Amino acid sequence: MSLVVVGSLALDTVATPFDKVKDALGGSATYIALAASYFSGPISLVGVVGNDFPGKYIKLLEEHNIDVDGLQVVNGKTFRWSGKYHYDLNVRDTLFTELNVFEKFDPLIPEKFRRSRFVCLGNIDPVLQLKVLNQMANPTFVVCDTMNYWIEGKKEELLEVLKRVNVLIINDSEARLLAQEPNLIRAARLIKEMGPEILIIKKGEHGALLFMEEIIFSIPAYPLEMIYDPTGAGDTFAGGFIGYLHKTNDLGIESVKSAVVFGSTLASFCVEKFSVNGLLNLNYLRIHDRYREFYNLTRFNEKD
Amino acid sequence: MSLVVVGSLALDTVATPFDKVKDALGGSATYIALAASYFSGPISLVGVVGNDFPGKYIKLLEEHNIDVDGLQVVNGKTFRWSGKYHYDLNVRDTLFTELNVFEKFDPLIPEKFRRSRFVCLGNIDPVLQLKVLNQMANPTFVVCDTMNYWIEGKKEELLEVLKRVNVLIINDSEARLLAQEPNLIRAARLIKEMGPEILIIKKGEHGALLFMEEIIFSIPAYPLEMIYDPTGAGDTFAGGFIGYLHKTNDLGIESVKSAVVFGSTLASFCVEKFSVNGLLNLNYLRIHDRYREFYNLTRFNEKD
Repeated sequence: MSLVVVGSLALDTVATPFDKVKDALGGSATYIALAASYFSGPISLVGVVGNDFPGKYIKLLEEHNIDVDGLQVVNGKTFRWSGKYHYDLNVRDTLFTELNVFEKFDPLIPEKFRRSRFVCLGNIDPVLQLKVLNQMANPTFVVCDTMNYWIEGKKEELLEVLKRVNVLIINDSEARLLAQEPNLIRAARLIKEMGPEILIIKKGEHGALLFMEEIIFSIPAYPLEMIYDPTGAGDTFAGGFIGYLHKTNDLGIESVKSAVVFGSTLASFCVEKFSVNGLLNLNYLRIHDRYREFYNLTRFNEKD
Repeated sequence: MSLVVVGSLALDTVATPFDKVKDALGGSATYIALAASYFSGPISLVGVVGNDFPGKYIKLLEEHNIDVDGLQVVNGKTFRWSGKYHYDLNVRDTLFTELNVFEKFDPLIPEKFRRSRFVCLGNIDPVLQLKVLNQMANPTFVVCDTMNYWIEGKKEELLEVLKRVNVLIINDSEARLLAQEPNLIRAARLIKEMGPEILIIKKGEHGALLFMEEIIFSIPAYPLEMIYDPTGAGDTFAGGFIGYLHKTNDLGIESVKSAVVFGSTLASFCVEKFSVNGLLNLNYLRIHDRYREFYNLTRFNEKD
């Protein structure tokens, strides 16, 4: 059974202090699908692009066992985003956002994927996230991302989504905003009461926190001496996370913890290169070596 | 053999959104010594207070097996500090700093402690830190703290200190400033080249990083739903860290990792109450229970 991934596909123009790229492959669904592709397949990618979207990008997705039958190609220009990162890569300016064909995106899940049990809702309008869920026959594990823009602008619709998802993955500032609570631990409790039984709070260079059952699990970020391009790291995390769980089909706490580590692992590869380049030539061995490095990074004696 | 702790003793006036205290026991040496007292003794406290310093505070220190023979009581007022924390407790304003008798502090190590092997240099003028080291016969494990003020104002003297210490414990912004490098992993490498073979970077609510040999070890902060007063958490970390190592006298990597966890453990107790109150009624069982909670917080399967 396939994994359904819904979100944006974009052409990104990104500048960092180290380099810049123009019209590179980007978008939340792209990063999620590529990351997940290292664990499971086929992946059903649902999104929209304009007829200017390069054929080589479609080919690249297909080469990663990503099914593009749910990818609508319509007349017009593809969604474009441009950002500039500062020397402190935690700070970025959005230079422009051109929604283009993404403005009228109406996700349509191909018939053959409607019985999929695993769904990853990238960061799009919660109204569209609901539309996706309404097309699915019996989704049993739904992962959802969102952002400040929807928390502030479409709170009611977002709360509807949250009642129907199993996992919410957001960053720390989004968690504080959604819960209206500065303490992350209390914020997490409040958000879990909104619906998702699993909450993951991403903290960028400080790692991530998993809240599941009565457990809190903490994982640091992978210590990198050079981060080339943070774009897509959060989406990549979500892709690695759901990809691993889709593969194992084990939703117990230990498996979910491992999924968080695999999400962090894929995100660490993502930021090492521009655009999606860090996600193109991975393999089982490299991914597992880094998982192991995460293990060593956090090990200490159980008893002193 | 005792552990020598040098630093400030202060009367703190602190306001948080939850409560406030006036002239409460504070100061870097106070927090370090109290935290260390749960592991090892006797602790030689070296500092200065005015003759207004309440006798009950001296008694409190002595009750924690802290030797106050190195505590100078001189005519004048004790060092006072006042701070106000915002609702986001990561942000604080210093309302006033009155150095008083601390301005002319000239640390004198009691003869009986000059052969101690473990020394903890709290955050004071690096000139004074050097004076302390010059009085010690053969210190083999020196832990040092510092702050932006000295990094900017007494860089040369600080670099002299760093050549003579084994461990530097600073926070992330201080590390970036000292190394002139925004990436923490590269900053750590540069700082280790300045002298200390062990570097610990504290990241407040995001935990701490240990750099030792070629190892990086990461530990999260203990997830607390309520932080009452962050004052002294960094000093407490240092005290728990060196106290544990002084007790075990094992300076191998696994022992040092455990010391980082015990430092984090003591710091988590510190911030749960105002002033030093979180450090007054601990015991072996409570400390080890929380160490164990840190263990559970970071556990995941070695193999997926």
